[in-house]
Amino acid sequence: VSDLDRTAVESANLAFYRALASRELARMDEVWWRDDSVSCIHPGWHRLEGWSEVRRSWEVIFVNARPWQVGCEQTRIVLAGDVAFVTCVEVIALTVADPDDGPARMQATNIFSRRDGDWRLLHHHASPWQPQGASEEESVN
Amino acid sequence: VSDLDRTAVESANLAFYRALASRELARMDEVWWRDDSVSCIHPGWHRLEGWSEVRRSWEVIFVNARPWQVGCEQTRIVLAGDVAFVTCVEVIALTVADPDDGPARMQATNIFSRRDGDWRLLHHHASPWQPQGASEEESVN
Repeated sequence: VSDLDRTAVESANLAFYRALASRELARMDEVWWRDDSVSCIHPGWHRLEGWSEVRRSWEVIFVNARPWQVGCEQTRIVLAGDVAFVTCVEVIALTVADPDDGPARMQATNIFSRRDGDWRLLHHHASPWQPQGASEEESVN
Repeated sequence: VSDLDRTAVESANLAFYRALASRELARMDEVWWRDDSVSCIHPGWHRLEGWSEVRRSWEVIFVNARPWQVGCEQTRIVLAGDVAFVTCVEVIALTVADPDDGPARMQATNIFSRRDGDWRLLHHHASPWQPQGASEEESVN
């Protein structure tokens, strides 16, 4: 596994998060394979299958989202030939946020494949995550 | 992509869920690659890296778990050379359950790789999921 491959996958992953931050559908179009092989599991959603369903979900998300900042931490890349999977922690904070609201954190698994030298997303799975030690809301019964 | 490959991946995925159902660590040993490349994101947990950390987590889960039944539904397989990713809905029900408790459902992403003809797990990501239309607990404020 060359450092070049690793850098290419890291770039593809960052391009995805820049697309997410931009809330521009045209940028999502550029980072996914636009065919039936792709799938997506948004936090709490059922699995979406194929580019048409996945694209529609980003459309809905972008229409409803307020300006936000998106970070990507603890990135880990595993390469296996023309497929790579990236795991990372997504950090999403509204640009204009209530002072009491911290950023949302998600654990993410992103699977990329390479075709003709181009790395793009095959699958995205994100799920809510609360770092250990953070205060949790307790119910009072 | 041959039907044989697809069947081999489907079998590897079922072997993982049989290992989960058995709560026997020795069976988990047989379905994962036991090296530093593997990782695991259990529902609500931080990412675990490398077989030693992942194995320990199954040990803790199996020690604490009561007998359960494990199902795997809506299985979808995408093959890309020597890597395959499987998405499915995990259905986990305690064998002796409170009549009011339904099974837990998780959206799962399982990544397998093939080495010397053998398909095993590289990565498992599971997150809680509630089917649409199911009644949700509402807080009374």
